[in-house]
Amino acid sequence: MENITIKVLAKRLNLSATTISKALKNSYEISEPTKQKVFQLAAELNYTPNVYAGSLRTKKSLTVGVVIPEVTDNFFAEAINGIEAVAQEKGYHVLVYLTHENYEREKAMLKEFKGGRVDGVLLSVTSETKDSTHIKQLMDENIPVVFFDRACDDVTTAKIITNDFESGYNATLHLIDNGCVQPAILLVSQNLSISNERLEGYKQALKVNHLKFKESYVLMCDERSNSFAAIKKLLQHKKRPDGIICSVDKLTIPVYLACKDLKLSIPADVKVISFSNNPSAVILNPSLSAIVQPAYEMGKAAATALFKALSKKKIELTDESQIISSSLVQRDSTYNYNK
Amino acid sequence: MENITIKVLAKRLNLSATTISKALKNSYEISEPTKQKVFQLAAELNYTPNVYAGSLRTKKSLTVGVVIPEVTDNFFAEAINGIEAVAQEKGYHVLVYLTHENYEREKAMLKEFKGGRVDGVLLSVTSETKDSTHIKQLMDENIPVVFFDRACDDVTTAKIITNDFESGYNATLHLIDNGCVQPAILLVSQNLSISNERLEGYKQALKVNHLKFKESYVLMCDERSNSFAAIKKLLQHKKRPDGIICSVDKLTIPVYLACKDLKLSIPADVKVISFSNNPSAVILNPSLSAIVQPAYEMGKAAATALFKALSKKKIELTDESQIISSSLVQRDSTYNYNK
Repeated sequence: MENITIKVLAKRLNLSATTISKALKNSYEISEPTKQKVFQLAAELNYTPNVYAGSLRTKKSLTVGVVIPEVTDNFFAEAINGIEAVAQEKGYHVLVYLTHENYEREKAMLKEFKGGRVDGVLLSVTSETKDSTHIKQLMDENIPVVFFDRACDDVTTAKIITNDFESGYNATLHLIDNGCVQPAILLVSQNLSISNERLEGYKQALKVNHLKFKESYVLMCDERSNSFAAIKKLLQHKKRPDGIICSVDKLTIPVYLACKDLKLSIPADVKVISFSNNPSAVILNPSLSAIVQPAYEMGKAAATALFKALSKKKIELTDESQIISSSLVQRDSTYNYNK
Repeated sequence: MENITIKVLAKRLNLSATTISKALKNSYEISEPTKQKVFQLAAELNYTPNVYAGSLRTKKSLTVGVVIPEVTDNFFAEAINGIEAVAQEKGYHVLVYLTHENYEREKAMLKEFKGGRVDGVLLSVTSETKDSTHIKQLMDENIPVVFFDRACDDVTTAKIITNDFESGYNATLHLIDNGCVQPAILLVSQNLSISNERLEGYKQALKVNHLKFKESYVLMCDERSNSFAAIKKLLQHKKRPDGIICSVDKLTIPVYLACKDLKLSIPADVKVISFSNNPSAVILNPSLSAIVQPAYEMGKAAATALFKALSKKKIELTDESQIISSSLVQRDSTYNYNK
């Protein structure tokens, strides 16, 4: 069988090897019709690029790194699917890195990326990340970074986020509309902008409804704390909350279990709404009202912004930021029997 | 700041650059104490290898590819965490590839790996994969492949699987013990060995309990079919099943919804048990009895087998196969009111 090289493709199409090479890399210098011809023949002849040989010449790894806190959360799993859909189309590989909410790990990963392993990075920072020096340093090496979901305010680049303030506001308003007068909110971090935005939305909804904001109704459930115990304690307060907003999905389970343990009925005693992309929400006991984030769309948009930057000579990412709205889905966990 | 190179490390430790280089690659030629010394100094001085320069010399990418059908399934998400834990320890990167149960995609991915992008592959095949030529071809290029969960019988390499036959048997026996006389089983593929093993376990449990096996109680729910409609139809049979075994977790939701739609009570009318690693199982309505697979451990074992092969001169993987047992967790969805 003939070994299909760039030379072979060049000869068949009567083009220079340089043109073929650039076309295969989707270079802006080559016209779309020429690229299409090259891609088509490459596919027909089963051309396989030697990745490392390619990297030598172009310093391109054809790989993007996706750095996320975890993969067991449905939001991130769906976002990866969105990223992957775009990357496959562009002929790029996706490297998934898990930080497990550990800032030092995130720092070490980004440092390694300087070695040329990835062309660009899609990043959702850990709940511990306060300092963004490691991100700026990577961008200084001309490796573009696009944030999705969890961003650092002080880094100037594209950020694909959802409307966290409005979603926090809407979730709280939904509880109030269904009879709650002292809802609580559960957060996972004080560093994350998404946590703060959701909290601000919560405060605003209380304010416009003339309800008092109480610090004791804001519960921080970080990686190291026992969420179940903390939530149980919150629900044993003399003035226990009559509604709970879980700002991340994984807090739903300890909330349900704590209520069960304390023989509190959801939604009669406590109404619950979570930021959740879990498809099981509909068959929970009771079914879970949720703020559903556009995870797949956010992954797609983040990857699209990154590839736009990678296809240009000069990397410009400031204009590519997007806010994609979440939606509120009402189910039984916030049902109002008195309405 | 001094640029930390292999030479610098060599000088400080009074060792040759070759020894440092081999130690950093965790070579079998270097003693453990020496490796430890090198790793420690490299960490102290923040040594960052230039990945691509390294690849030039050694043809090692320090990357393993993980090829799985999907990431929204909790089993695979947990398995990735296990793989990642081992890879991080070994200084390897993990590339996650999603086939979306598409055989052609799997073939294309493995073909690309021949270009030197990965040193080894951890593979869980698609539900469509019948022919294993693409896997054998990759192994012929001296790139080791370790299967986890879903393996091809005719490929000679390490396979990290769970006891699918016994688990299918135990799930069925559990339904029978709780009063079912005509349980059904839902599968996703006729090609997958795990599907067949679980089915054989089901048949065996029926046999030893003198219950008749009926083809009509084996429902195939592949990617292209509407599982909800098919399950609803099954439950509308004149002789509808009194128990259901979901051989994969994602079938749990359509089963619960079909029962709700038909006003069938779980567990009074239909008992349900699923192969599930979903942490939500405990708060479902009703809580879900499950065969819980050792996903994290399977990922760890598969990665360990692969790294063992990669650290040796000659790649030998036939002795590294393991069967790690699943466990049955009983909850309300199989509760027997008449017991």
